[in-house]
Amino acid sequence: MNYSELSLKMHEENIGKIEVVSKVSIENRDDLSTAYTPGVAEPCRKIHENKEDVYRYTAKGNLVAVVTDGSAVLGLGNIGPQAAMPVMEGKAVLFKEFANVDAFPICIDSSDVDQIVNTVKMIAPTFGGINLEDIAAPRCFEIEERLKKEIDIPVFHDDQHGTAIVVCAGFINALKLVGKDIRDAKIVVNGAGSAGCAIVKMLFSIGAKNITVCDREGIIYKGSPFNSPHMEELAKTTNLECKQGILADAMKGSDVFIGVSAANVVSGEMVCSMNEGAVVFAMANPTPEIMPDIAKKAGAKVVGSGRSDFANQVNNVLAFPGIFRGALNVRASDINEEMKVAAAYAIANIVKDDELSEDYVIPNALDKRIGVEVAEAVERAARESGVARLK
Amino acid sequence: MNYSELSLKMHEENIGKIEVVSKVSIENRDDLSTAYTPGVAEPCRKIHENKEDVYRYTAKGNLVAVVTDGSAVLGLGNIGPQAAMPVMEGKAVLFKEFANVDAFPICIDSSDVDQIVNTVKMIAPTFGGINLEDIAAPRCFEIEERLKKEIDIPVFHDDQHGTAIVVCAGFINALKLVGKDIRDAKIVVNGAGSAGCAIVKMLFSIGAKNITVCDREGIIYKGSPFNSPHMEELAKTTNLECKQGILADAMKGSDVFIGVSAANVVSGEMVCSMNEGAVVFAMANPTPEIMPDIAKKAGAKVVGSGRSDFANQVNNVLAFPGIFRGALNVRASDINEEMKVAAAYAIANIVKDDELSEDYVIPNALDKRIGVEVAEAVERAARESGVARLK
Repeated sequence: MNYSELSLKMHEENIGKIEVVSKVSIENRDDLSTAYTPGVAEPCRKIHENKEDVYRYTAKGNLVAVVTDGSAVLGLGNIGPQAAMPVMEGKAVLFKEFANVDAFPICIDSSDVDQIVNTVKMIAPTFGGINLEDIAAPRCFEIEERLKKEIDIPVFHDDQHGTAIVVCAGFINALKLVGKDIRDAKIVVNGAGSAGCAIVKMLFSIGAKNITVCDREGIIYKGSPFNSPHMEELAKTTNLECKQGILADAMKGSDVFIGVSAANVVSGEMVCSMNEGAVVFAMANPTPEIMPDIAKKAGAKVVGSGRSDFANQVNNVLAFPGIFRGALNVRASDINEEMKVAAAYAIANIVKDDELSEDYVIPNALDKRIGVEVAEAVERAARESGVARLK
Repeated sequence: MNYSELSLKMHEENIGKIEVVSKVSIENRDDLSTAYTPGVAEPCRKIHENKEDVYRYTAKGNLVAVVTDGSAVLGLGNIGPQAAMPVMEGKAVLFKEFANVDAFPICIDSSDVDQIVNTVKMIAPTFGGINLEDIAAPRCFEIEERLKKEIDIPVFHDDQHGTAIVVCAGFINALKLVGKDIRDAKIVVNGAGSAGCAIVKMLFSIGAKNITVCDREGIIYKGSPFNSPHMEELAKTTNLECKQGILADAMKGSDVFIGVSAANVVSGEMVCSMNEGAVVFAMANPTPEIMPDIAKKAGAKVVGSGRSDFANQVNNVLAFPGIFRGALNVRASDINEEMKVAAAYAIANIVKDDELSEDYVIPNALDKRIGVEVAEAVERAARESGVARLK
């Protein structure tokens, strides 16, 4: 199928993908006087008396802003806020379809950290949660960190955490399949952008001990002249043997390769140099770090990618709808590490032990059970970790 | 009916009034690949090449932000952005029901002019138009004026212009009924807030010559010590005889009274002192400047108010949906005076000459013809005045 052509047609025929509709009908004067003046003054008064009532009488508690500056859209790069709109609308569609969350695109006309943080703070009264999307590293880290501190609704950068959660779900099941322990697995992550950093953090959260990260300059090690501040931070917790070298050196004798980098940077030989029962997640889009069939031929036991035309697709839609559904359900003040880990295990557990196979370590993106399971796990974790404002 | 109770119930049962839904269905992998990655990259690319294509492939061209800081909500005053949410959602519902415009509430967490202007500028890429709502005077004037200059989509402050348009429609028909010429009519406007100022401006636009404005301190005259800068501006164009005195003095011998002020400030005697065939629009809410039956008994020929339980209701829903429908249809860069005047005449003309009566100078708010007629008139005016970007 030529999805580019189909997509242009779909977008043009529908003039975009979202609409804002009414949950109440306005058929007569009484309806008008109830939904609008004079009746509407009463819910206003109630909220003015008790601000928390905004969750009771308005849509706020189910509204999520999908916020971008258009600086890192898909593989297209910095295309600006207008051109990012189709992706943000797409996200809103998926939020609604998979978890009944009312999401709305907010495309911001600046890539300045202060401007983005300030704008989101200013519009926060309307929303129950903020999903950051396609904002370039490293500013996405600062934006997320500051917003988490400065507003009282949950903030989640999907490119970081959504990807990390789904990769971790696949990783958990893949290790189960090849019979290796998370604590012993030698893991190589290629790419130190927003997704790479979040993946490393989550791998540690679920028990990984031995992680080496590479970027274009090769293995990241403490004190490398190529390190940016956030890479120096990474270097403190990874590569404990302080190895230097290129990606091929890192992969030799490793158990798991996770790529969030660029097309064709991994060869069959490199996969061949990994330990037996190798696990490869090659998520560069649209062309992976290594094509799944080549990785398999080179000896990889489990292969995943970002593509829907191969097995084990790492698709964020497995995570973000259920995460927000769960967070909104309990009016969580944050989406914390406990909630993300719970989501990863919930996704992994959709695949039952007797279904688990090398082509099925990650569930199907369209599996309607997932949103519900993830939401329940996230709700529970929010309660247990003390960020749920509804009990 | 107890609309307060009904309204609380409606808002609580539905948890607000709006939702964001998908115009496309996601049933299978192909749908997912068309609405989202990888297909969605193509409309993104097109818009990146030609920014105007954002109107072709996204919902932008039909999205209107309903923006408030919650500083002047209904008769409730400064209740803040959260408590304003039910009104903004109500507005979004009416936009959709009456003109198929997708409107979305943006409740801003600041009453600072710079913050509001900046926030709207930052989020403008998502929207095809900006409807300012319930922002207190005088800052609403500066906010509207600056936004009109600084962003390329139409900006409209409904409390000013929506009210002015509907009042003018009623005024046009009322004068026709009593057989007076607009140019000769002696008009008194009581209230120099956002609505009062906009009404004066529009009355001049449709040909009025003789207007006197009062506020709490009495008649506004050039050089009055009570004048704020925007009132000094008003004083330059109104009250050309430079009368001083109280509201009762202004009303004596006048033809039309327009109140956007406070409850019960006009007595039967004051109406009685007006010329024969007096026209009274008493729009203070919920209690008018004078109750319609008292005004009638005192000799007023035509009486209108803001209330749905009396004849001739001045209801903004007659104007704003069709205004934006028309502006969006031709991708107008502005909603200018010509478009507002065209809207007023379109609303007035809904009432045919043989239907015109003292109880029917303003059409029914639920009359579904209105949105269409207003939109057509506004489109035409936008084209003729050179602000239509689509021909």
